[in-house]
Amino acid sequence: MTFLKEDTLSHLHQLLDDQNFAHLTQQLDDLHSGHVADFLESLPLDKRTQVWKVLREAGDFEEVLAYTEGEVRVSLLRAMDASEVAEYTANFDADDAADVLQDMPEDKAEDVLAAMDAQRRLRVEAVLSYAEDTAGGLMDTAVLTVRADVSLETVFRYLRLHTELPDKTDMLLVINRENFFLGGLFLSRLLTHDPDARVAEVMSTDVATIRPETSAHEVANLFEQRDWVSAPVVNANGYLLGRITIDDVVDVIREEAEHSLRSRAGLSEDDDIFAPTLSTARQRALWLGINLATAFLAAWVIGWFEATLEKIVALAVLMPIVASMGGIAGTQTLTVMIRGMALGKVMDSNSAWLMRKELAVGLFNGLSWAVVVGLVATLWFHNGMLGLIIAAAIMINLLFAALSGTLIPLLLKRLGIDPALAGGVILTTVTDVVGFFAFLGLASVFLL
Amino acid sequence: MTFLKEDTLSHLHQLLDDQNFAHLTQQLDDLHSGHVADFLESLPLDKRTQVWKVLREAGDFEEVLAYTEGEVRVSLLRAMDASEVAEYTANFDADDAADVLQDMPEDKAEDVLAAMDAQRRLRVEAVLSYAEDTAGGLMDTAVLTVRADVSLETVFRYLRLHTELPDKTDMLLVINRENFFLGGLFLSRLLTHDPDARVAEVMSTDVATIRPETSAHEVANLFEQRDWVSAPVVNANGYLLGRITIDDVVDVIREEAEHSLRSRAGLSEDDDIFAPTLSTARQRALWLGINLATAFLAAWVIGWFEATLEKIVALAVLMPIVASMGGIAGTQTLTVMIRGMALGKVMDSNSAWLMRKELAVGLFNGLSWAVVVGLVATLWFHNGMLGLIIAAAIMINLLFAALSGTLIPLLLKRLGIDPALAGGVILTTVTDVVGFFAFLGLASVFLL
Repeated sequence: MTFLKEDTLSHLHQLLDDQNFAHLTQQLDDLHSGHVADFLESLPLDKRTQVWKVLREAGDFEEVLAYTEGEVRVSLLRAMDASEVAEYTANFDADDAADVLQDMPEDKAEDVLAAMDAQRRLRVEAVLSYAEDTAGGLMDTAVLTVRADVSLETVFRYLRLHTELPDKTDMLLVINRENFFLGGLFLSRLLTHDPDARVAEVMSTDVATIRPETSAHEVANLFEQRDWVSAPVVNANGYLLGRITIDDVVDVIREEAEHSLRSRAGLSEDDDIFAPTLSTARQRALWLGINLATAFLAAWVIGWFEATLEKIVALAVLMPIVASMGGIAGTQTLTVMIRGMALGKVMDSNSAWLMRKELAVGLFNGLSWAVVVGLVATLWFHNGMLGLIIAAAIMINLLFAALSGTLIPLLLKRLGIDPALAGGVILTTVTDVVGFFAFLGLASVFLL
Repeated sequence: MTFLKEDTLSHLHQLLDDQNFAHLTQQLDDLHSGHVADFLESLPLDKRTQVWKVLREAGDFEEVLAYTEGEVRVSLLRAMDASEVAEYTANFDADDAADVLQDMPEDKAEDVLAAMDAQRRLRVEAVLSYAEDTAGGLMDTAVLTVRADVSLETVFRYLRLHTELPDKTDMLLVINRENFFLGGLFLSRLLTHDPDARVAEVMSTDVATIRPETSAHEVANLFEQRDWVSAPVVNANGYLLGRITIDDVVDVIREEAEHSLRSRAGLSEDDDIFAPTLSTARQRALWLGINLATAFLAAWVIGWFEATLEKIVALAVLMPIVASMGGIAGTQTLTVMIRGMALGKVMDSNSAWLMRKELAVGLFNGLSWAVVVGLVATLWFHNGMLGLIIAAAIMINLLFAALSGTLIPLLLKRLGIDPALAGGVILTTVTDVVGFFAFLGLASVFLL
C-alpha cells in the first residue's frame, strides 16, 4: 500500500461533513488500517474523537491504532478505558507498552499496569524505571538468549519451540548461567554454518553493547553509523538487560529532527497541528512575548538616536536593511554550528578554527554586499557619505553575526541550554542591536 | 564503543598541530576505526587530506572509510584512484556502490565501472539507471530468492552453501521461474516451522512491495510507519527487481531532516562545515543577496512615508516591533504547515479548516500582544493615539502572518517549489511590508 490518495481523503472528509456515518463506516471498512489511520490523523481533535467512537463501536480498531503516531495516538488512547488499553498493549514490546503508559495520566497508567499479568508488569516496570530518553527507556526486555556450549542444532530445536521470534531479531544473545553477556549469534551465521558446530565457535564476540544510561541521541547516532538492526543493552557489570531495535531508533531520529525544526520557531514537539485553537494560541504566545521583549530592546537602542533620525529620515528607511542582513548571515552560521554540534563534529578543540573560518566568510560576504548596498544607498539618497556609513555598518554587523553565530551555541551548550531553542532569538537580538547601533551611531558622528 | 571522547580528540588535534605524525599514526592505530573516522570528520579539508594520506600509506584505511559519511566520505574518495575505489567498493551492496559513483566526477565513475567484473557492473548499472531519490536508486539488486515448492529443509541446505547472507536479511524472497514475486519467507518463520513444510505454506503472501519509481521520501515514510527491516522492489508487471533495507532508509530520513533544517537558512546539504572559506562564502552569498532584495523592498515601502517619519520620529523607533512580531507569528504557522505537509497530514481537503484555525490563533495572540505593545508605546511616548495605531498595526500584521503562513507553503507546493527553502523569505517579506505599511499608513492618516 502507498499513502492514502488525496481524492479518497477529500471524499471521506466530505462524508464526515455531511454527517453521513453509515456511508463513512462502510468506506472505512473497505480501507487498509494504515489508510484509516492517515484519515484520523488528518482530522481536528473533535472530529477525530467522533470518528474514533464510530470505529470502536464497529469493533476492529486495534490495527488502526497501531498505525497512528505521536499526539494522535495519545489522544485516541486517552479516550479508552484502562482495561481496553491493557488488552490493546498485551502483545506490545515492553518498551512500546511503557511508551503508551508514559503518555497517559498517572492514575490511569497505574490501572493499566494493575490489569497486566505479573511477569508482563515486571518487564514493563523495568523499562519505566529508566528515563524515556535513555537506552534503558528504549530497550525491550523480552530477548531470546542461548548458551555458548550448545550446538547450533540445539538452537534450531529451541527456536522451533517458539511460534515466532521477537520482532527485529537479527541475532540471538549468548549469555552464561549468571546472565553475563558473552556475544551475539547472528541468524545470518546460524543459518550458514554447520549445525554440529557449537554456539561458542559461531557467535560474534565483538558485538558492541549499549549501557542503559546512554542517551537516546547517542543510541540513534550509533545505530545510524554502524547500520545495526538491534543492539544488546548491558549494564556496567556486563549483565544483559535487554535489546534495542531499529524501529524505536528510527522514531528517535524522526523525533529529534522534528524537535530541531519546531524549536527554532519556539514550538513544542507536542503541538499537534490539529490541537484546539486556544491551546495552540497559548503555547505560541510565550515565544511571541520573548521576541517582543527583544524587539523592545532594539527599539530602545533606536530611541537613543531620535535626534539624529529627526534630521536625516533616510536613516529610518535604510536601517532595517542593516539589521536584516546581519540576522540572515548570523542564522546561516548558527544553523551550521547547531547541526555540527548535534552530529558531534563541533567541539572545543576545533571551535577556534571554525570561528576564524566564519569570520573570514563574514568578511568576504560583508565586503561584497556592503559595496552593493553602499552604491544603492548613495544613488537613492544622493549622499556618498550615507553610502559609506551603511557599507561600514553592514561590515561590522556581518562580523558580529559570524562571531555570535559561532559563540552563542557553544556558550548555550556549556550552560546546558538547547541552542536550537534559544540560539535564534539571542542571535537576532545581537544582530538587531549591533546593526541599529553601528548604523545610527556612525551616522550621528559623521553626518550631523 | 561510544563516541570519541572530547579530550582524546583534543589530544589528536594537538599532535596534528605539532605535525607530530609519528606519534599521531601510532595513536590512530590504537583507535577503533569509527573513532578515526570521527577524528577525520572533525578536521578542515586540508588537514583531513593530510591525515588521510598518512592513513593510506599505513595501509588499513578501508574500514575507516566505511565509517565516514556524506561530504567527508566524498572528499576522501575523490582523493583516491579509480582502481582503488573499485577495489574498495567490491564488497558493497550495489546501491551503496552506485551512491559512491554518483558522488564522483563522471569520467572517473566510468573508470571505476570499467574496473568491475561484468556481473557486478550490470548490477550497479541497473541501480544507476534509476534516479538517486527513488526506490530504484535505493535498492540493492543482490537478493536471496527461493522457490515456493521446495521444503524448508531444502532452504536450510541452500543457505548453508553461502558463507553469509546479504546484510539486513530478515526475509527470503519467494519467486517463480519467471522472477515473478510471490511472497516473503521471514527468517523468523523459517526458524520456527517444521523443516518438512513447503515454502508455500510458511511464506507470507501479504508482504507489501515497493515500485522502483516510488520517491525516497515515500519509502522512508512507509518503513517508518510499518517498522520494516527490508522490503522488496517489484515493477508494474510483478517482477522482483531488488530490495531496500532499513540502513539506507535511515540515511534518507536523516538527510531529509538535515535538508529541511539547512534550507531554512538557504544552505545546501553539501555545505560541509569544514569546506574551504571561499566556497562556503560563495554558497551563502546568494541567499544574502535574495534577502537583501526583500530588505530593499521593505525599505522602499518605508520610503513612501518619509514625510510622516520626518514629523513623528517615534514611528521609526517603534516600526521594527510591528514587523518583527509578524515575522515570528508567521514563522510559527509556516513551520507547522511545512512539517504537516512533509508528513502528509496537510492537504487541500483540510487546508480551509487549518486556515480558519490559524486565523483564530492570530486573532487571539494579536489581541493579547497588541494591548501590551499599545500600552507600552502610549506610556513611552505619552501619546494614546500612537498606542492605538501600533496596536491596530500589530493586529493586522498577525492576521496577515497567519494567512501567509498557511497559504504560502500550499501555493509553493502547487508550483513545485520546496516550501522549506523559499517559504521563510517570502513570508518575512510579506510581514515586513504589511507591518511597515499598516503602521506608517495608519499613522499618516490619524497622526498628521
